[in-house]
Amino acid sequence: MSREPPHYFGAGPALLPESVVKQASQDLITYLSNDVGVCEISHRSADAIDIINTAKARLAQAYSIPDTHEILFAQGGGTGAFAAVAYNLTAAYAKKTGKKGTANYLVTGSWSEKAAAEAKRLGFTTHIAANSKQSAGKYGSIPDSATWQFTNDISYVYYCDNETVNGVEFPADISANLPQGVDIVADMSSNILSREIDISKFAAIVAGAQKNIGVAGITVYIVRKDLLSRLPHEEEVALGLPIPPIVFDWPTLAKNNSTYNTLPIFGVHVLSLCVKSVLDKGGLKAQQEESESKADKVYQVIDKYPQVFNAPVAKDARSIMNIVFTLPSPELEKKFLDGAKELRLNGIKGHRSVGGIRISNYNAVTPQSIDILVTYMESFAKII
Amino acid sequence: MSREPPHYFGAGPALLPESVVKQASQDLITYLSNDVGVCEISHRSADAIDIINTAKARLAQAYSIPDTHEILFAQGGGTGAFAAVAYNLTAAYAKKTGKKGTANYLVTGSWSEKAAAEAKRLGFTTHIAANSKQSAGKYGSIPDSATWQFTNDISYVYYCDNETVNGVEFPADISANLPQGVDIVADMSSNILSREIDISKFAAIVAGAQKNIGVAGITVYIVRKDLLSRLPHEEEVALGLPIPPIVFDWPTLAKNNSTYNTLPIFGVHVLSLCVKSVLDKGGLKAQQEESESKADKVYQVIDKYPQVFNAPVAKDARSIMNIVFTLPSPELEKKFLDGAKELRLNGIKGHRSVGGIRISNYNAVTPQSIDILVTYMESFAKII
Repeated sequence: MSREPPHYFGAGPALLPESVVKQASQDLITYLSNDVGVCEISHRSADAIDIINTAKARLAQAYSIPDTHEILFAQGGGTGAFAAVAYNLTAAYAKKTGKKGTANYLVTGSWSEKAAAEAKRLGFTTHIAANSKQSAGKYGSIPDSATWQFTNDISYVYYCDNETVNGVEFPADISANLPQGVDIVADMSSNILSREIDISKFAAIVAGAQKNIGVAGITVYIVRKDLLSRLPHEEEVALGLPIPPIVFDWPTLAKNNSTYNTLPIFGVHVLSLCVKSVLDKGGLKAQQEESESKADKVYQVIDKYPQVFNAPVAKDARSIMNIVFTLPSPELEKKFLDGAKELRLNGIKGHRSVGGIRISNYNAVTPQSIDILVTYMESFAKII
Repeated sequence: MSREPPHYFGAGPALLPESVVKQASQDLITYLSNDVGVCEISHRSADAIDIINTAKARLAQAYSIPDTHEILFAQGGGTGAFAAVAYNLTAAYAKKTGKKGTANYLVTGSWSEKAAAEAKRLGFTTHIAANSKQSAGKYGSIPDSATWQFTNDISYVYYCDNETVNGVEFPADISANLPQGVDIVADMSSNILSREIDISKFAAIVAGAQKNIGVAGITVYIVRKDLLSRLPHEEEVALGLPIPPIVFDWPTLAKNNSTYNTLPIFGVHVLSLCVKSVLDKGGLKAQQEESESKADKVYQVIDKYPQVFNAPVAKDARSIMNIVFTLPSPELEKKFLDGAKELRLNGIKGHRSVGGIRISNYNAVTPQSIDILVTYMESFAKII
């Protein structure tokens, strides 16, 4: 079984590195010395525990994760993580202060908007510290940090580091622009493992795996360890804290090395292989250089032909991972998509909510694929 | 890539049919006319939607699911379903009556015990209508239905149709023994698709896929459609109903054909292939005959050598799917396990909480595997 290396720019579930696909396909049949495949072994078997620990060790190596932080795996995706964050960060704040506090959200696109709405729906007190749609009329920029307005009882500050739908990415972590000592939570579902990060600055990093680090069905949490204990249940109830389903209770996950309930070990294994492929490239520094170089090529051709390619995102907020643009008319957009398809350049249609074109530039997208795409864009721009 | 057909009796994640493993492994590389595999396509692509709808159609065919019921897929496993059931059934009861009601649980093993505990922890009013550990001193039987005691405000009655850890299975659905018209919820995580069932009797059936119907990471809900709407959010809050994370909100899942958020399409595809393998055998009637015939063989050899094999479960509560027994000493147990391993009879150690031996007799376990196992048990019993 093999395939022609694809040129696939889908936003997620997304392309996997060729070596990972091959290995995963093999491991479905038999895994190591087992008579059965990796989907069939018990999540409590020695081989499954080794898969979990290897995935954690590789992630820890890639990010130089300090001892202060723990890695958890769970089900539920990014949308499940919206809830998990609110439950666990609020509980941690309540343990420290005896109060529920207010969750402060920076809203710069669809995903952070949804995250804030979910916390509010669940009964948490939320506050929108900044909203680029309100300040700029549409998503596509990051409001000047001088305009961010926080409450005095911040349980945590939440932001989405890279907005997949809108193509907006924070150029750096935001800790310098926040009140000192607040707990920072970042959703890195679409840019985890794409660039170097100082993990110590974060209370929690959350990411659905299916964009840049594996397959759908696994969520990664990198959590500061002091968040992994809570008040006794009765005290939380007395404080009026919403109680999380136990599958979203980080202390329970941590106590059980992510196997309180059945963890999809296949997904953890694929994640581990994806992290390995970054380590094999030379680690995050090398990956970041590659990601930036690939993105630069696409943005250059966009900027070279502004009459053909319209990039709606402010330059200082342009995403390295999801490059969005539009064409002057629906007819030209269709022509662009049709021509791309002929070259097997697939998965480039923009999100249904915004339309246009979106080039997802995840780690599995090779420089060769980007070169073919850029050549196509250039020739398209010249002939129309 | 191929493997020697395994003789694997693990309780879950469990064996998959050989044809399913082969197909899944192939589909990881490329799926239909895509350049990429089934883990890499968008959950909103035409092929993904077709996977979802095909899985639903096959399940509907296998069970003759009536139009009154809807099929949902989600993440979270059986443990997530404990919470989802409490949230959604209580909301449905509140919509009907304006009250929270009391969730009534029949506890016949570890899983129903956990389900009841989770509902209570989340703030629902719960009542244990029967508990075999309390009435009989240990799990291993089903209390006489004449002794079941219900409240007057039943929001729903919950039971675990097959207790995987304890090897206890209800011989038939329990509707005849319940107050008329109550909503019945059954956890069928370990016996879904093993026998014929009249779906119309259930408000909801829930099942983690990784035992008898696929891989870890997918939960199946078969839900009566009138449960798929709720009171307005503000009214639920005013009633003091715990609010579910949106990933556990069945009306939201139903409205979006299970793709409100990213659904692990690979898992749905494997589930679909597993259902197809039952349909190919001749459907649920044929599967039930095969399952019972396989289980009979094992129970017969157990009963033939009562001085060697001790079956702790009452005969009328014996599970077809998880056959548990103990041997007279830890030494003999070890000898039994070692001998089995030499014959590649794997995955037969009992659950860590109860010890002993457990033979899981899921649909993917072939009659050939059972024959080899039974021959081994017989020869073991004769020589010791």
